[in-house]
This record gives sequence, structure tokens and C-alpha cells, in this order.
Amino acid sequence: MTELIKNSNISVDCVVFGYDTNTKSLNLLLIKRYLESETDHKVLVDDYVLTGYHIYEHEKLDDAATRVLKELTGLTNQYKKQFKAFGDPDRLRNEKDILWIDNEKFNFRTVTIAYYFLVKTEDVDLTHNKNQAEWFSIHQLPELGFDHKKIILEAYEDLKTKCLAEPIIFELLPNKFTINDVQDVYESILDIEIDNRNFRRKLINKKYIIPLDEKQIGVSKKPAQLYMFSKDVYDKMYEKNYLINI
Amino acid sequence: MTELIKNSNISVDCVVFGYDTNTKSLNLLLIKRYLESETDHKVLVDDYVLTGYHIYEHEKLDDAATRVLKELTGLTNQYKKQFKAFGDPDRLRNEKDILWIDNEKFNFRTVTIAYYFLVKTEDVDLTHNKNQAEWFSIHQLPELGFDHKKIILEAYEDLKTKCLAEPIIFELLPNKFTINDVQDVYESILDIEIDNRNFRRKLINKKYIIPLDEKQIGVSKKPAQLYMFSKDVYDKMYEKNYLINI
Repeated sequence: MTELIKNSNISVDCVVFGYDTNTKSLNLLLIKRYLESETDHKVLVDDYVLTGYHIYEHEKLDDAATRVLKELTGLTNQYKKQFKAFGDPDRLRNEKDILWIDNEKFNFRTVTIAYYFLVKTEDVDLTHNKNQAEWFSIHQLPELGFDHKKIILEAYEDLKTKCLAEPIIFELLPNKFTINDVQDVYESILDIEIDNRNFRRKLINKKYIIPLDEKQIGVSKKPAQLYMFSKDVYDKMYEKNYLINI
Repeated sequence: MTELIKNSNISVDCVVFGYDTNTKSLNLLLIKRYLESETDHKVLVDDYVLTGYHIYEHEKLDDAATRVLKELTGLTNQYKKQFKAFGDPDRLRNEKDILWIDNEKFNFRTVTIAYYFLVKTEDVDLTHNKNQAEWFSIHQLPELGFDHKKIILEAYEDLKTKCLAEPIIFELLPNKFTINDVQDVYESILDIEIDNRNFRRKLINKKYIIPLDEKQIGVSKKPAQLYMFSKDVYDKMYEKNYLINI
């Protein structure tokens, strides 16, 4: 079951976006890549990369991506999107990458199928992680290896488009949320400021945003109304509703 | 330059959507797959598939897709989108596919990077084509090999979403068009009827739909106003314009 495809030149790479409710920021989970020269201990490679792995002989692409996420974060059942394959012949051929690959002994011409995941940073426990994974703000990325900067930027563009077209941001919210919580997530992902009043009016008019008989608890200011998102209502409404929006 | 990747298990497949201005229909370009038994000439395989090919050693994925389209249609510079990779371990393992692959001698576990293209059927000259390519209505597809039905259906869903979000349908229209022409393309792709009056009002209010000082010629009924699409205006308008539309 877990045999690699022979002469494998196919991998999956996972862009893990994490929303941090406390800092209201969008983050990215990256792992450290570090290599010293065996002779003089000179640092040859010291940067960060996405988590990826080759696919096993009898494994579906989606399953490979889910496996990589689980090994990294312990999480399953997160929102996942396969967004693009990257296969430039020279994508792993920067000077540092060549040193790294010589050391790890894998194929230079690897096509990678890239996925992104949406998680809440609070759900991820990195203390047991042996890969030295760290969160970085999407706006302050460290030095990256391979073509992973390109992959991250394309994932981010796709995420922005996707979260405007589909209600995926509710994956990043608790089951009960305020209108401000929704606005915070949009502002973090889109990196824009949204007019509060217009947004509130627009959102509470959506049939799939359901007001609850509950308000916030444990806040110092006036407690705000809580809402839930109904996927049932959303799916029903958009079944046949093609909104030409060009 | 044209050497295949060793032990190649990566290919591209091209879903070629063709809009036929005369019949106002959306079509798909498929090639015949035919195999007889050598002993008793029994027909073993007789169906249709997408056009695809393995990628060459020094070739980018996009370039491989462009090459396949050019070999099939003679066309270059068509709208192209890489929309998904397909890599189920059993995707080439139907009974007929196994007969075919034994004959063609390629790898059972092939991950294919799927693209779709938009062309006008009138631009494609199939008479010189040695692959026996044929157009089929998207609503009347023949029997298909491999997992190509799945690939086509996913490409079609992606196309529908895409043409609602971005002005790609203008690729299928002449430089000067009537509002009815635009409506015809939308109706063909989305397979819906659009309310004529609302559509006209909505479209002529778009700043990037520019009325020309010209009307249709050579029509028996009252000649309609001609318009052009300005990509410059469109790009300018949408540069920073995130329309939250969930």
C-alpha cells in the first residue's frame, strides 16, 4: 500500500493557510530546511519550504494531500482545494535546491500537484511536530526554497477569488459568530478594509446567515448578536442560480 | 529537446471547447480510438478520447498543452486554462483501456494535467487531421475511453463558473458583435435561457462594452447595433475591485 511509484516524478505540495482568531491574521505553515557541509559545517541551506511528499503507488492525489496535512498538523476533514500543477523543468534547480536534492536523492524533474487547506491556527498543535513547522504571516514570508514562493502566491490569489465566489470562509469561523467576526476574516484574507455598515447590511440580508436567539458572552462592550451559516440554505439557493457577474 | 521524461508517468490532456456561430452550440473536439484483434479482426475498442500526450524532458506543462492543441487544430494563442490534475491509480484500468494500453505500451499509473481551450469551430480545419478528430455537441457525447468523461464534465463545470466570473466568452465572439451574439454564447455555454431585456440592459451598462458607429450588414431584419469588448477598460475597472458576492 505504501510503496512509492517507481521512478516517481510526481508529488503533492500543501499550502496550509491558518486563520488566527486572536490576531485576526492569515498565516501560512512552513517547515524548516537546513543543511550543513559535512566537512566544515558551513551552512549550505537554511530556509523554509511547503510540506510535500511523493505519492504512493496505490494512492489517489487527494488522499496523498490529506495524508501530508494529517502528518503535519494532526488534522483531517479540513477544507481542501487542488488548485494547480507546477512542472517547469527547472523548478527545483536553484543552487541551494541542487545541494538539497543531492542530499535527499530525489528526482530533479518533479511535477507537483499543489493543494491548499484552510485551518484555524488554534486547532493545530505544533509542539509534537518533528518537522519544525512554524506559522508565518502571509505578508511576512521568510526565504523560501524551490519554486514554493510562486506556489504560495498562486494559492493565495486562488483563495482570494474563491472566498469571494463561495462561502468557504465559514470554515474559519466558529459555529456561532458575530458579523464583525465575518468581516475580520474577509479583511485578513483580502487584505482590504471593508466598509462596516454596507457589509453588515449586505450580510444580514443573506438568507443563509441565520440570526440566533443568543448574544456574545464575556465581552466588556455591548454584546453583539450571534449568527450561524446554513450550508443547506446556501446550497438550495445556488442550485440553479447563475449570476452573470462579469 | 523532444526526449520524453524517462519512465514518464505524466501527461497533459486537452479539452477543446468549440463554439459554433452558425448552430449557436457548444462543442467538444474528440479523437477516435479504434483497435481490432489481430487474429479474428474482432473490434476490441471503438470509442473516443481527448487528445493528450506525455510531456517532453525539457518542456513546461503549459507548452506541452499548447503543442497538443497545435498538432490537433493548427491553432495557437487560444484561451487556455490548466484546471485540474487527474491521478486516480485506476483511471486507465477499464477493460478496454487495458487492451489499448497493452497495444500502445505506456504506463498504467499516469497522472494527467488537464487543460481546456476555447476556440471557434470555424477556425479549425479538420480535413488535414490524421487523428480522425470530430466535433460533438457537449450535450450528446459519444462513448468515451479512460476517465475522459469525468475530465470533460469537470472542465465543463469549471468553464461555466469561469465564464460567469471573467469575460472569457469574448474569445468566442467576433471583434464586432451584437448583444444577441453575446446572449447566444452565454445560453450555449450555461445551457439556460436568459431573459432578453434584462440581459441587454445589464450588458450595455457595462463600461467595457463599447457601442460602435456601425450596425450589422447583410441581414434581412432590422440591423442591430454593433459593440466591441475593451479588455483595457475591463482590466482597469477590476484592478482593485473585490466584489463580495457570496
